[in-house]
Amino acid sequence: MVKSTLAGGTLVKSFSATALEYFPLVREGDDLASMIVDVGLENGLRLEDGDIVAVAQKAISKAEGRMVKPEQTRASARARELSAAVGKSAELVELVLGETRRVLKASHEILLVEDKHGLVCINAGIDRSNVEGADELALLPANPYESAEKCRVRIKELTGKRVGVIVCDTYSRPFRRAQVNFAIGYAGIRPYRDYRGKKDLFGRVLKVKNIAVVDEIAASAELLMGQGAEGRPVVILRGLREVVDDSELGAVEGLYMSKEEDLFRGAL
Amino acid sequence: MVKSTLAGGTLVKSFSATALEYFPLVREGDDLASMIVDVGLENGLRLEDGDIVAVAQKAISKAEGRMVKPEQTRASARARELSAAVGKSAELVELVLGETRRVLKASHEILLVEDKHGLVCINAGIDRSNVEGADELALLPANPYESAEKCRVRIKELTGKRVGVIVCDTYSRPFRRAQVNFAIGYAGIRPYRDYRGKKDLFGRVLKVKNIAVVDEIAASAELLMGQGAEGRPVVILRGLREVVDDSELGAVEGLYMSKEEDLFRGAL
Repeated sequence: MVKSTLAGGTLVKSFSATALEYFPLVREGDDLASMIVDVGLENGLRLEDGDIVAVAQKAISKAEGRMVKPEQTRASARARELSAAVGKSAELVELVLGETRRVLKASHEILLVEDKHGLVCINAGIDRSNVEGADELALLPANPYESAEKCRVRIKELTGKRVGVIVCDTYSRPFRRAQVNFAIGYAGIRPYRDYRGKKDLFGRVLKVKNIAVVDEIAASAELLMGQGAEGRPVVILRGLREVVDDSELGAVEGLYMSKEEDLFRGAL
Repeated sequence: MVKSTLAGGTLVKSFSATALEYFPLVREGDDLASMIVDVGLENGLRLEDGDIVAVAQKAISKAEGRMVKPEQTRASARARELSAAVGKSAELVELVLGETRRVLKASHEILLVEDKHGLVCINAGIDRSNVEGADELALLPANPYESAEKCRVRIKELTGKRVGVIVCDTYSRPFRRAQVNFAIGYAGIRPYRDYRGKKDLFGRVLKVKNIAVVDEIAASAELLMGQGAEGRPVVILRGLREVVDDSELGAVEGLYMSKEEDLFRGAL
């Protein structure tokens, strides 16, 4: 691996991404980290220091027992009221509200919320794709940062290797067509490559550049995961160890901006 | 390469991304495609059918002579008026307006516009980072789709290989911290992996999933490009040939949504 010293740190010349195939269906209570290690070996991939493990949110939610049945949910008065406005069942709306800090937009087209962690997404990320039970839905992990950290620590315990972990999911975005994969939690990773105050090719100081590598890695992983019947919830990225850093434990930097910080406010 | 048949088409198990090092500074009139082929060979990388060539916008803009000097720009009355509102020079504002279809937000914090191609971005993507002349700015390519297609055709001419080309640049986004790399033009690529109407793991039909792989590939490439003094405007991705397709020539699907289509409208 050729490396060179750079404004934003050391940047590798190449990386590879590999999906773990034949990943078993994940059930509540499964030791997902252990499955990742084992299925990795079955795929001929032994985890190394500096690897990044990208895990689809749905696999984490299943292992953590975040499956719910709307029929067993009791809708509040607020959920029933909102239900009419959005044209969804009061039970689904109740489940969404249970994960929500703030409703941003509620119409027949979209129920857009800011979830408990600050993630802005449709239906608080609740959906039924790749969920086994016909009447079940999957909530996002209760705390995706903690899920990532738990997975990172357990992988270290099992293998002795320092890896980074990213929990990811696909979301719609403003302005641009279709969805991409974003990070919703991470551990053992520096999420941003910050160039602010560093210099460009010609020595000019960069004022704004701060790159969300954590989202770029999530996006890379999705290219192999797929979203349909692929059954590939885990992708291992090798060659990006520059961003792996377990010294920042606990110093989780938020992925999201408050409305006040968001310069796009009022522009949509 | 292990492949399997999937809901959204054929999905590979792994891919690699490699940055071309020692890329010369690009000058107006340079044959960028030829440089990519040659520097690739110097890096030990011979382009193959199915490779994707991700090129930083700045390199294209330089080759196409899209450098401008604000001091040689004559500001219109509208630019002078807006200049006061945003606290930027009337000449810079004039340059921005020249690339703009619609101003979305103009404040001292941000001049957010929709450019001629529908790209929503700050200052119409005009900046001075990695531009040689102290008093020069770089505009985005006049038509990034055409730039990509020109590069694709020229690479085929030089090597006989069918590659995809993505022109990319880093942008801020609503809701999420920091910037990521997005595609602003492409050629020889299917930009979306559309699952709508396909089935999930358990046979349930997916209604919404449509993945912007073109943006995910751009994001992957940025991990190696860097934004400072790296001097690495080109990244080659190998293993993603499922998305490379030069049969769709001319059928460029837009990357952006109109405000009417955008379900996020009014939410920020």
